[in-house]
Amino acid sequence: MKQNGVLYLIPTTLGDTDLSKVLPAYNKSIITQLKHFIVEEIKTARRFIKQCNASAIIDDMTFFELNEHTNINDIEYMLAPALQGFDMGVVSEAGCPAVADPGADIVAIAHQKGLKVVPLVGPSSILLALMASGMNGQNFSFVGYLPLKDERKKALKQLELTSKQKQQTQIFIEAPYRNQKFLEEMLQILNPETKLCIGMD
Amino acid sequence: MKQNGVLYLIPTTLGDTDLSKVLPAYNKSIITQLKHFIVEEIKTARRFIKQCNASAIIDDMTFFELNEHTNINDIEYMLAPALQGFDMGVVSEAGCPAVADPGADIVAIAHQKGLKVVPLVGPSSILLALMASGMNGQNFSFVGYLPLKDERKKALKQLELTSKQKQQTQIFIEAPYRNQKFLEEMLQILNPETKLCIGMD
Repeated sequence: MKQNGVLYLIPTTLGDTDLSKVLPAYNKSIITQLKHFIVEEIKTARRFIKQCNASAIIDDMTFFELNEHTNINDIEYMLAPALQGFDMGVVSEAGCPAVADPGADIVAIAHQKGLKVVPLVGPSSILLALMASGMNGQNFSFVGYLPLKDERKKALKQLELTSKQKQQTQIFIEAPYRNQKFLEEMLQILNPETKLCIGMD
Repeated sequence: MKQNGVLYLIPTTLGDTDLSKVLPAYNKSIITQLKHFIVEEIKTARRFIKQCNASAIIDDMTFFELNEHTNINDIEYMLAPALQGFDMGVVSEAGCPAVADPGADIVAIAHQKGLKVVPLVGPSSILLALMASGMNGQNFSFVGYLPLKDERKKALKQLELTSKQKQQTQIFIEAPYRNQKFLEEMLQILNPETKLCIGMD
């Protein structure tokens, strides 16, 4: 009986950064061995693979797209190559797969199937922002995107309360084009003593 | 007037791993330029620096120790070299400085002094465990160590409730020698439907 393939979780750069600045050399050696990928977007994933391995023959590779447009109840078939014995890679658009993106669902299914899952090291905007913030890194929460409009004010106040009561850093993200307005809103709503750190890719 | 030095946050390996497996080549090039370090333990930091740069002259370097034995109200002086224009590095025992270790305090002071803080990419046991778990990576909390004895049961139940109510992954750490007992406790206390993932360095 053939052995199952391994599912590698492969981080990418945050924005247009030199690969050797943020990715261990080991990652390239793994990517060079793979022919089957689950990716957030095929076009950028192909470009990333080419960057890692200039002699990669992209047309010989299999790509499954897993993103917000995917029917999340029907993704099991993407693991078929791994069940046939081929090692596979999960690649997200920026940063670490399965953190703040849809990769976690496919990892959960991989575990159900008994596949070995290996996370590789790479940049996470959440972690880098936390490190550089000087805020509490012994207790923190990442809550993704906040709700919009009237709900946002309530959510911000709740996060501020939690941060004070638990001494817990609260991390959230927003689309770049909303940042300026969001910042003004926070300055208006939040207590002047509440510390705020903004990280930008 | 002399320009201030930069404070680099320098991740190390988790346990005895080959450097190129988990650290970008860029990190070595930065470490090679530095002569002043704030470290969790001098002995292991020296060894790590030697690994990164075999020709490093350790005796010419300055080390400040910042750990649980340090008087946290008196650490500002450690930034003196940066204020004199020398780039400095913060190195913790394992993984990323300022996350789940005391480095955050010195980063906060660096910001007060107007120093530039640059986090480098490296392995974080918290992030790698989350990636590989298949659990919710869009909403998660890291809460450090749980309290001991009777308080522990209460804390576990509370985390279980939070994970259910908020659909939020709860991450915590424990010393290796307590793991077995802790696991048995969790299996006894927690709901059979609650998912549990154990990551070990």
